[in-house]
Amino acid sequence: MTVIHQTIVVRRDVHAKAKADAEAERRRLAARGTLAVNLLSSPGTGKTTLLEATARAWAGRYTMAVLVGDLETDRDAQRLRRLVPTAQLTTGGACHLELPLVRRGLEALGDPPVDFLFIENVGNLVCPASHDLAEHLRVVLVSVTEGDDKPGKYPKMFRTSQAMVVTKLDLLPHVPFSVDAVEADARRIQPALRCLQVAALGGQGIDHWCEYLVTERERRLASQQ
Amino acid sequence: MTVIHQTIVVRRDVHAKAKADAEAERRRLAARGTLAVNLLSSPGTGKTTLLEATARAWAGRYTMAVLVGDLETDRDAQRLRRLVPTAQLTTGGACHLELPLVRRGLEALGDPPVDFLFIENVGNLVCPASHDLAEHLRVVLVSVTEGDDKPGKYPKMFRTSQAMVVTKLDLLPHVPFSVDAVEADARRIQPALRCLQVAALGGQGIDHWCEYLVTERERRLASQQ
Repeated sequence: MTVIHQTIVVRRDVHAKAKADAEAERRRLAARGTLAVNLLSSPGTGKTTLLEATARAWAGRYTMAVLVGDLETDRDAQRLRRLVPTAQLTTGGACHLELPLVRRGLEALGDPPVDFLFIENVGNLVCPASHDLAEHLRVVLVSVTEGDDKPGKYPKMFRTSQAMVVTKLDLLPHVPFSVDAVEADARRIQPALRCLQVAALGGQGIDHWCEYLVTERERRLASQQ
Repeated sequence: MTVIHQTIVVRRDVHAKAKADAEAERRRLAARGTLAVNLLSSPGTGKTTLLEATARAWAGRYTMAVLVGDLETDRDAQRLRRLVPTAQLTTGGACHLELPLVRRGLEALGDPPVDFLFIENVGNLVCPASHDLAEHLRVVLVSVTEGDDKPGKYPKMFRTSQAMVVTKLDLLPHVPFSVDAVEADARRIQPALRCLQVAALGGQGIDHWCEYLVTERERRLASQQ
């Protein structure tokens, strides 16, 4: 077998302003008590379903808002707006979200001082990894139906995330997938990665996921002050 | 709920040369009897598994070669090279394949005059839709675990494809997914789309898929002459 490598020219960092803008927005959100969470995954891994389950678990305890990114349609926002303040960010075909669009979404919601701001990125395991949306926490989802070989094949997404959530755990008996293998593969890339598992439709693992977020909120917001 | 649209500036077509190159390569492949098939989907939808099943079904009847695109690793090529000539195209982080890399892969294999050249694109339902790899046939895969709302959310991929293959049909009893709904959604975008269904691990639908490819090869190669 032949392996062909394509050389990518490493460019100088021309995104210094974008980075500074994200850093300033991250501090602004932290200062008023909002933890921003950027959710990333392939299409159909269950980002919206996880957020629905999170909103139900926290009703009356923590406040949250959602910005939902999609190329077209507002299907995900239609599902979430029944539960929490939600703005649909439509990229018009672009493969990832960027900070200016996130800000416009926040403004459209009235910039609410919620405990958690979730940014559901466009379903894409590649391009969104390269864009800082002022999140405090980047979480990548992998479903058991996608195969346990994904971290090594899409390494930047896992290298830049703080947590990985394995989703659709209820389908495990029906698919060739090893939770141990996917976690080992992901930790080869990012040894500090926190690994969680959920079956959001049935509620399995949601308590643990919610506890993780609450703990991270306390820890990360304290560290920004 | 608020829907925020981002305006994309329509650029003049600066890719005329790339288009002409793809057209010339498409004709060259057709002239010697090779049908080129560009396979596209989210990560983990089952492109490699479908190609393994195809190679087994055709052993001794039709010849095929595979070019496998990934950001990193040669995991997919390792699986396929046991069955057919395979070159791994490693993009070094880029989110899609482009024609020059495809050509280098073909050359590395010795430019074999096979009946079918499969190009397994990077797992990404967005960016690969915008790149012509000299294929005669573009096929998009959607697994039943991804949800039946995907065509409307990722419309360009479906608008530019000739066929959609619904994969992992054996998981249908365990997931909320309607084959009728996904086909209706896809045909709203691309009325001429050919819809097929497979469960490649168990072999269901593979005969039909192979017949489709053989028929398309005869039809499309004749039309190029």
